[in-house]
Amino acid sequence: MTLITEPDTRERILLVAERLFRQIGYRKTTVADMAKELRMSPANVYRFFDSKKAIYEGVARGLVGEVEAAAQAIEKAEGSPATRLREMMTTINRMNTERYVGDAKMHEMVEIAVDENWHVCIAHMQVITESIAGVIAQGAASGEFHVTDVLTAALCVCTAMMRFFHPQMIAQCADKQGPTIDHQIDFVLAGLGSRK
Amino acid sequence: MTLITEPDTRERILLVAERLFRQIGYRKTTVADMAKELRMSPANVYRFFDSKKAIYEGVARGLVGEVEAAAQAIEKAEGSPATRLREMMTTINRMNTERYVGDAKMHEMVEIAVDENWHVCIAHMQVITESIAGVIAQGAASGEFHVTDVLTAALCVCTAMMRFFHPQMIAQCADKQGPTIDHQIDFVLAGLGSRK
Repeated sequence: MTLITEPDTRERILLVAERLFRQIGYRKTTVADMAKELRMSPANVYRFFDSKKAIYEGVARGLVGEVEAAAQAIEKAEGSPATRLREMMTTINRMNTERYVGDAKMHEMVEIAVDENWHVCIAHMQVITESIAGVIAQGAASGEFHVTDVLTAALCVCTAMMRFFHPQMIAQCADKQGPTIDHQIDFVLAGLGSRK
Repeated sequence: MTLITEPDTRERILLVAERLFRQIGYRKTTVADMAKELRMSPANVYRFFDSKKAIYEGVARGLVGEVEAAAQAIEKAEGSPATRLREMMTTINRMNTERYVGDAKMHEMVEIAVDENWHVCIAHMQVITESIAGVIAQGAASGEFHVTDVLTAALCVCTAMMRFFHPQMIAQCADKQGPTIDHQIDFVLAGLGSRK
């Protein structure tokens, strides 16, 4: 018999919560549903999380954390800054598309983040902006990019990629006229003064 | 006594409809409400517009048409392409902010356009993209911009400005960290190979 420690229980609650949010949606899932799946009392779940909202935030942090880890790994990898910036932006687009688009329940998760949990989004955008800034700083140092203010450049790059990063915009623009992501990345690299 | 011609009646219906949509919202406004304000029978309103949806589209076309006219005037004006592109993009941002942001009823109008009347949005984005393409073509011809494919460049520029053009994004990003519109325009001009 394994000893169940507290961090394990937190993780188990988040795993079950994420599964229920995906299956029946955030709004319809109750803490009692989670407790039942976990064979716990709701009171025990509340020992670990103050509220359903706190559980939501834990699940959301996990989802965006995976994208952040992927971006950070590319920031620290080898290769030219332009190549890694392209790879990072393509990866963010792919992961956000896979996670949030074409699934009504995950749409609901994003809407709740946008409407009620902006600090989760803000923290996530900050981490992504920092990874982009990291690669821009490397390119500025090597002379590959011509940038004076790295943070402003990173904010401009993120903004220019909104159609491909923001889950609501990915969904809304999916079947609309627009540049391919590769064209947009070419344009962004030109904005950074990258030599082709 | 003035003779009321049919085009006048169409215009009067659209004016009254726009006022009611602004006052009580699109969903709550009925064709009967419009008819009452116009001292007409609903049947008479239906002689001019098939449905409330058709009236919505007439009102929406009028609203976006004003932004399009402003963009086209700047496209045809004198001055350097970079200066006019900045002026055009600043104008689109200002007009869309004034029209659609901070007014719940106008938010509703935008949401309906996005959810149910995409062809209005698509036609509008096409006209705006064409005006931007017009100025880019002038800058490419004069050597001020370094662009090989004008349409792709225009689509990239519009996409890069989404935070400042798209009413839902203007509202959502209003109090969030991000570049100023002038920084974003600098970045876009660099993307077009504009010499500072």
